[in-house]
Amino acid sequence: MEDIKYAPIGVFDSGVGGLTVAREIMHQLPDEYIIYFGDTARVPYGSKSRETIIRFSRQIVHFLQTKSVKAVVVACNTASALALETLQPELDIPVIGVVVPGARVAAESTKTGKVGVIATESTIASELYTRVIEEQNPRVQVYGKACPLFVPLVEEGWINDLVTLEVARRYLKPLMETGIDTLVMGCTHYPLLRETFRQILGDGVTLVNPAYETARELKDLLEREGIANDGKRVEAGHDPDKTEANAMDPGKTDEEKAVKKYSFYVSDAANKFKEFASTILPFGVDAAQLVHIEDY
Amino acid sequence: MEDIKYAPIGVFDSGVGGLTVAREIMHQLPDEYIIYFGDTARVPYGSKSRETIIRFSRQIVHFLQTKSVKAVVVACNTASALALETLQPELDIPVIGVVVPGARVAAESTKTGKVGVIATESTIASELYTRVIEEQNPRVQVYGKACPLFVPLVEEGWINDLVTLEVARRYLKPLMETGIDTLVMGCTHYPLLRETFRQILGDGVTLVNPAYETARELKDLLEREGIANDGKRVEAGHDPDKTEANAMDPGKTDEEKAVKKYSFYVSDAANKFKEFASTILPFGVDAAQLVHIEDY
Repeated sequence: MEDIKYAPIGVFDSGVGGLTVAREIMHQLPDEYIIYFGDTARVPYGSKSRETIIRFSRQIVHFLQTKSVKAVVVACNTASALALETLQPELDIPVIGVVVPGARVAAESTKTGKVGVIATESTIASELYTRVIEEQNPRVQVYGKACPLFVPLVEEGWINDLVTLEVARRYLKPLMETGIDTLVMGCTHYPLLRETFRQILGDGVTLVNPAYETARELKDLLEREGIANDGKRVEAGHDPDKTEANAMDPGKTDEEKAVKKYSFYVSDAANKFKEFASTILPFGVDAAQLVHIEDY
Repeated sequence: MEDIKYAPIGVFDSGVGGLTVAREIMHQLPDEYIIYFGDTARVPYGSKSRETIIRFSRQIVHFLQTKSVKAVVVACNTASALALETLQPELDIPVIGVVVPGARVAAESTKTGKVGVIATESTIASELYTRVIEEQNPRVQVYGKACPLFVPLVEEGWINDLVTLEVARRYLKPLMETGIDTLVMGCTHYPLLRETFRQILGDGVTLVNPAYETARELKDLLEREGIANDGKRVEAGHDPDKTEANAMDPGKTDEEKAVKKYSFYVSDAANKFKEFASTILPFGVDAAQLVHIEDY
């Protein structure tokens, strides 16, 4: 029981986007081990139904439990919005998503009482951001806008790009007209377009990144439950595959040590994961392991 | 055995796009019954690996076989390019894809000997279009270009749109510079952007629509094998679910009769299928039935 603090944290996403959340956890909780799962065979979740997203998420959590994780972070906004409430009571370990932390900060941040949320179609349709923000502060008005082209634009690498700027102008126009002073970037890929949003919205609108807020909330949670890794034991309580999977080289630098703490699993072995991961993480992910997730 | 001709044709796609192929079959082979499956839970296939696409396609063919189909049309370019050759020897009914018919016509059509192919990343990476076109005519040079933004743009409904025009200009520019006189629209969604391509390419480039060519090839195949539906028996050899699933109303018009011949199945019950289907087909698809495809 006392070893639980050295167990890894499970982090999952529909694909690569959740690596932005994993990166925040690595940064804010450097002593923690992480098992990351990206559902690259079935990505994206953003336009799929609640029933399907719950089924997929449940399989992933079952997989993560085979790795003895001490907590699960649902790093996908869509899965957080549609599956988290169903999964939480089924599990005996803490599970947190990205929506609630992002929504809380948005509710605190707004002065005009008008908050915009950009996300996938399914996240917007779930209205979870709206519900949580209004629970925090009933005087806040929430305006949601589904932006299905942002993920493919980011994955095409058109980050600082005139096409992306024009697409963003269209998506953000109706939100700007409402007078929002806070915008939740409610999909893991969106913070990569932060500069584009800033260019359109100016400095008067606060951009909320749920990835950042989620890592903070995870830190509080682990401390509150007494299961935070104190960093006193190295290489313990963690999946034995990790060394083979992710050690770049048996080495001594801080970066190399960090790399050995993180294991990556995917449901499809497409090169895209590796390529995209290297744009997000400060180290390469050469050996993400393939999992037949539908068997879990 | 003599009843086989009244059995339905199975048509499948990663999602909704294959309905453009189904529509061509309905048009060119009006006596045939169709069982359509769209893998909406795992769409898109275009950026996924060969192994995953084969696994998904095999499950779908197994499902279609439970409906006693007499032939299968792989209406998805990506699945045709990556899974068809593996699946064909596993089955005792004819299976055709969209790549070979499209490639054949492209090889016949070109005068400059330079053919462009636009498709998903996985289709382009497979190089199947290149291989088949060069087999038909070794003097033809094939230039492939992956266009991952076209599908999300079409699904967003931005068909005649300045953003889409600009995206198409970028994707087509390197192909135009090679001097192609024929362009294969190698993904089921792309023919919906025909006007945009025409605007950029002018009248000097022939646009090949594999959906049209596939329906022609299917017609030849069914006649050659003696299993074409002669239209003399109504409501036979077809899935009993169909009436409930697709009859809009028990009625008498030609359109209503047609509707009763077609059954639609999906792996995710998202509304998107219904909405998009209605933009492609001349009748509504109100009751696509949900299938847990990973069980097959």
